[in-house]
Amino acid sequence: MKIANYINLVLAAGLVAVSVQLARMYNCTGKEDKQMTNTENTQFAGGNGNPVIDSIMTRHSVRAYTDKAVSEEQIETLLRAGMAAPTAMDKRPWHFIVITDREKLKAAAENMKNASMAAGAPLAIVVCGDMQKAIEEEPARQYWVQDCSAATENILLAAHAIGLGAVWCGIYPIEERVADARKLFGLPQHLIPLNIIVIGTPKEYKEPKDKWNEKAITRIAND
Amino acid sequence: MKIANYINLVLAAGLVAVSVQLARMYNCTGKEDKQMTNTENTQFAGGNGNPVIDSIMTRHSVRAYTDKAVSEEQIETLLRAGMAAPTAMDKRPWHFIVITDREKLKAAAENMKNASMAAGAPLAIVVCGDMQKAIEEEPARQYWVQDCSAATENILLAAHAIGLGAVWCGIYPIEERVADARKLFGLPQHLIPLNIIVIGTPKEYKEPKDKWNEKAITRIAND
Repeated sequence: MKIANYINLVLAAGLVAVSVQLARMYNCTGKEDKQMTNTENTQFAGGNGNPVIDSIMTRHSVRAYTDKAVSEEQIETLLRAGMAAPTAMDKRPWHFIVITDREKLKAAAENMKNASMAAGAPLAIVVCGDMQKAIEEEPARQYWVQDCSAATENILLAAHAIGLGAVWCGIYPIEERVADARKLFGLPQHLIPLNIIVIGTPKEYKEPKDKWNEKAITRIAND
Repeated sequence: MKIANYINLVLAAGLVAVSVQLARMYNCTGKEDKQMTNTENTQFAGGNGNPVIDSIMTRHSVRAYTDKAVSEEQIETLLRAGMAAPTAMDKRPWHFIVITDREKLKAAAENMKNASMAAGAPLAIVVCGDMQKAIEEEPARQYWVQDCSAATENILLAAHAIGLGAVWCGIYPIEERVADARKLFGLPQHLIPLNIIVIGTPKEYKEPKDKWNEKAITRIAND
């Protein structure tokens, strides 16, 4: 065999190796995008190719779940996301009740009218305000509601980002719901349940809503 | 020249072309990651390689900005993100006052003690509750606070995701601040200012806080 033939072999092998790597990168990127945004190539309003923006724009309430359990790693990711939200005066006045007990989830569904989907869910998180951590003086003390709402939104976005689906079921300030949740989850007096987030693997793909409304914007500009 | 030599040339050209494409893909991925998360290869708590989770974990309050203006496209991205948040009974009871007027930003900084960084910012958004859209019956009417807080968190995350930085400055429920904001921005009675988000290009990189706190978690599990 001539030298030129050897070079041929080497070049051909190199071309195959680099092409395989290229194909793998295309493939990886595609897979990650899919898992991350759940968009499945669907057009949606406000998507701009930035994975974070696209995930914010495609998140939606999920009320039907498969039987698949949520892993401990996923639960920690959700809680870390919640705790990463900003809080007034950095008080971090939240407490998270993490429920994976099937009987307790069923009891929540029965007792809390607006959380009936919990009966078929593997996980729920009750986001509470911790009055031992909240700002002491009123009315600033009430910032716990806003702080815990920001933490809740982070959890909803994190769930969507890791292939789960979630729905925010309001509790506070409806006194009856607060009392029901207190009793059901054995909450001490200093914890006020703001909501219960019901979480699981989505049973089906749902188109995100386009809620864009120009009438809800007022501009104060120079010209 | 023998046939083997021609094949050599073709294979070499192919190898170069595929390698260039591979190098470009590596490069693109690297650039996108950087713009998206602002992490600049820094280790941070709770990061797991998912771009959405990483962005949630690295977001932090930004109070110092460069002179760079925020584009119309960026403003729309922020507002779309805000409107994508969930709201109780899908009422969407928000209204956004978008301020790019330099004099008005300076006036906001002077009048609102906790928003003094607005003097050096190119943009602020006042997130208001719209009482013409909120749930009518009390106490559920108060869900507007939680709805607008979720919208605010979406705007903060979107800002971070597109290379901007932002800080949430509370207004409601502190009556004096509400009155000041009403006067300054000429708000009609049905709009209640919840906060002012001050936004711009971050002047410097800031390490995100690690706010993980296991004591703020209670488990209700089967075993």
